[in-house]
Amino acid sequence: MIETDGGGGGGGEGSGLEMTPETMRRLGYRVVDALVERWSGLREDRAWSGGSRAELEPLLREDPPASGRDAEEVIERALDEVLSRAGRIDHPRFFAFIPSSPTWPSVLADFLAAGFNVFQGTWLESAGPSQVELVVLEWFRRWLDLPEAAGGLLTSGGSAANLVALVAARERAEGSGRPAVYLSDEGHTSLERAARIAGVETEGIRTVGTDARFRLEPGSLDEKLRADRASGWRPLAVCASAGATNTGAVDPLCEVARVCRDHGVWFHVDAAYGGFAVLTDRGRSALEGIGLADSVTLDPHKWLFQPYEAGCVLLRDPRGLDEAFRVLPEYLQDTELGLQEVNFANRGVQLSRSFRALKIWMSVQTFGLSAFREAVGRGIDLALTAEERIRSSASLELLSPASLGIVCFRYRPRGEDRDEDSLEELNVRVQARINEDGFAMMSSTRLAGRYSLRLCILNYRSRRDDVLATLERVEAVGAELAGG
Amino acid sequence: MIETDGGGGGGGEGSGLEMTPETMRRLGYRVVDALVERWSGLREDRAWSGGSRAELEPLLREDPPASGRDAEEVIERALDEVLSRAGRIDHPRFFAFIPSSPTWPSVLADFLAAGFNVFQGTWLESAGPSQVELVVLEWFRRWLDLPEAAGGLLTSGGSAANLVALVAARERAEGSGRPAVYLSDEGHTSLERAARIAGVETEGIRTVGTDARFRLEPGSLDEKLRADRASGWRPLAVCASAGATNTGAVDPLCEVARVCRDHGVWFHVDAAYGGFAVLTDRGRSALEGIGLADSVTLDPHKWLFQPYEAGCVLLRDPRGLDEAFRVLPEYLQDTELGLQEVNFANRGVQLSRSFRALKIWMSVQTFGLSAFREAVGRGIDLALTAEERIRSSASLELLSPASLGIVCFRYRPRGEDRDEDSLEELNVRVQARINEDGFAMMSSTRLAGRYSLRLCILNYRSRRDDVLATLERVEAVGAELAGG
Repeated sequence: MIETDGGGGGGGEGSGLEMTPETMRRLGYRVVDALVERWSGLREDRAWSGGSRAELEPLLREDPPASGRDAEEVIERALDEVLSRAGRIDHPRFFAFIPSSPTWPSVLADFLAAGFNVFQGTWLESAGPSQVELVVLEWFRRWLDLPEAAGGLLTSGGSAANLVALVAARERAEGSGRPAVYLSDEGHTSLERAARIAGVETEGIRTVGTDARFRLEPGSLDEKLRADRASGWRPLAVCASAGATNTGAVDPLCEVARVCRDHGVWFHVDAAYGGFAVLTDRGRSALEGIGLADSVTLDPHKWLFQPYEAGCVLLRDPRGLDEAFRVLPEYLQDTELGLQEVNFANRGVQLSRSFRALKIWMSVQTFGLSAFREAVGRGIDLALTAEERIRSSASLELLSPASLGIVCFRYRPRGEDRDEDSLEELNVRVQARINEDGFAMMSSTRLAGRYSLRLCILNYRSRRDDVLATLERVEAVGAELAGG
Repeated sequence: MIETDGGGGGGGEGSGLEMTPETMRRLGYRVVDALVERWSGLREDRAWSGGSRAELEPLLREDPPASGRDAEEVIERALDEVLSRAGRIDHPRFFAFIPSSPTWPSVLADFLAAGFNVFQGTWLESAGPSQVELVVLEWFRRWLDLPEAAGGLLTSGGSAANLVALVAARERAEGSGRPAVYLSDEGHTSLERAARIAGVETEGIRTVGTDARFRLEPGSLDEKLRADRASGWRPLAVCASAGATNTGAVDPLCEVARVCRDHGVWFHVDAAYGGFAVLTDRGRSALEGIGLADSVTLDPHKWLFQPYEAGCVLLRDPRGLDEAFRVLPEYLQDTELGLQEVNFANRGVQLSRSFRALKIWMSVQTFGLSAFREAVGRGIDLALTAEERIRSSASLELLSPASLGIVCFRYRPRGEDRDEDSLEELNVRVQARINEDGFAMMSSTRLAGRYSLRLCILNYRSRRDDVLATLERVEAVGAELAGG
């Protein structure tokens, strides 16, 4: 069923994995059409779709077929049976977790990177792509106000970026004692996991208290570092959030930087989704001090509108990466070129790496930076719009104000005196109903013990109407379920 | 210059990052055409191309433009200035390092995964894709003869897979003492790096000797484990190679498994490129015992013909992954579904993950498993062809015989008595000339101290002629340079 090229000019040696240019083109166009159709209909589509394993296994579990199947049918099956059964993270009303809404040139860039199969591990194997990665990293460095010598690499995401930063910090940490890292109780779990991977015991993950706005308290940090040093801990790094996942809270970066300097401890900022807020004036002011960090994590696949996967870590002194990660086995001896020719495989966890910089480069070139600024600003605006709407509602209660793109709230029936358990039970049902309807997708969290609904608005497609209609739906569904 | 949709029906709220369906389709077709053109002309193109940073920086270093540029021009620039300046890892005569030659349905799958922007971290957000990842992992499990309960996850590549395995092993290791991991002097450096990341000191990376065929000596391993335990080391894992990068050597897996069992140490097999040899009878017999492993690393982006990135780690007891990596912050509380619904983010380093399983699934469905078997077998055949050709040549010296897809050799002028330094200097020049010509790409390594040229033949496009012509070229260039 597959039209192979029968070996072309090579004497009948054609492989069964080849296709004719005509077939390739036809299948390629089919995929383009399918994606354009999906994107054009996204707003009218459900924000979420899924299925249990019991439903999906009979449909999809099978041995690999011995002989091939029609390539177009395989594509249709992927579309109908697999890709349709997933959350639409880029839907304009997908407000759950941390959404991601890539641009079309970014998606085409991922297609190009796969089609050229770039090996972005060494300069020898990918000179042009490595240069583009340097260019993109330089953009980020300047956006964050890091010193000129700063540098880093793109990663699979924030988790790998946090891991790279913590390992580099560990290698630089002086003294002896049991290793410890510091983060607020709102810090991202990927930091905790990275610390565990890097050999920090559970007890060495030291939690620092937050204030009423969920921001790390520099005073508590200072005390904890002092006490811990005295009792034999070896602080590897302090991890501040520039955009906590729960609430969007930004830790007081300047003050945390000062405490770190006083104690001679590595200052890491996890700005995975929040970092790109620096493209706007409001975000820049909220993230003041980020340029003082020893390392910063960014996730272009979050608020820079790139498809999965694209994370980034930047270090004030990137030599720390080489010290921690450099490898040069004999089978890579050819890849040692000049000092200027960066081998990105020496800077992190991965040796084989795909060309992640291309999507950032192509999308910023195509739309221009001002369109990105405007799109990030839109998220900040819409979160404020949601906050206002919640404040003015008789049946919605604000649990944490808009910060960057996030607002937390709950449904609370007017004039009723419900206890916390009853409110939680009601809000769980409200959330489930809205998600199952498919109109919008929200996630929940827990703030100071209280079950909270949470909107995270980072999508360039989201409009005022999307936000307002979703809140209206919460009120309506809440009233219906509370009355029942 | 960008045709945005002007807000569609949404009251002038259109974002500057949107494009009309017509523009999307036109750009998509353009990229399809460019890739089809590249693939059709690959054999006639250079196998390698590059450039120094001094050459590339003036071309590519620039601030991000404030306003947008013509999208098609950006694509052309990516093609002309960036993607053209890289090694063609999938060229039929790219025999350097570990080549990677994806199939077209795999590339389309990466395009689909980016265009649907699948978040493959939790079942809630990607039910269908998670089910497909389970299906693909089950295929691999059976190919490797691992027990039914075995499982794992797809990763960014072998480096991350090795890291995940070593961290899981570390968490299971009993006793106290300084942690140590064991590998042969032919083991992959990513294992060394993974061990360092996981907190093993340099001295704790214990090297075991190899035999004349570069295979780990089980007797030496046994002695070393015994001696190390006695002197206070805590062995975390033994790492065997099933396809060493230098020579293709496969460690004696059954015997290593026995030593590990005797000592109660975790048995890891790094089968990154070599593992898929089990699809052929010869490979299956060479890799006998791989199913005894506690963990196995595979790289579908190597010998399973997938584009970067696709790695995999399988554990005999996958609960070890949950124990080592599971996270459940409050902002993910909604993602806890049934026990059957796997959240892959709990199994490794990454929380955000792209849909890597789709390319494996689509390409195997399209071509059928027998085409993959045949393509892997072709690499084994062609390496034997190269070995024969080298043995029968008066001016080529075999330095290590064909194993899986790899052969090592050097140019050695007939009837001359050159010392090692002179041979090295000559072979460095031969290699440089051939790579610069662009006809083929070879890399070098060092075997028992001797500088060696190395062919790694894993590409489904490579033919007998490609291999023979490359060796002929080595003879011709060698004769020319030796005579000069």
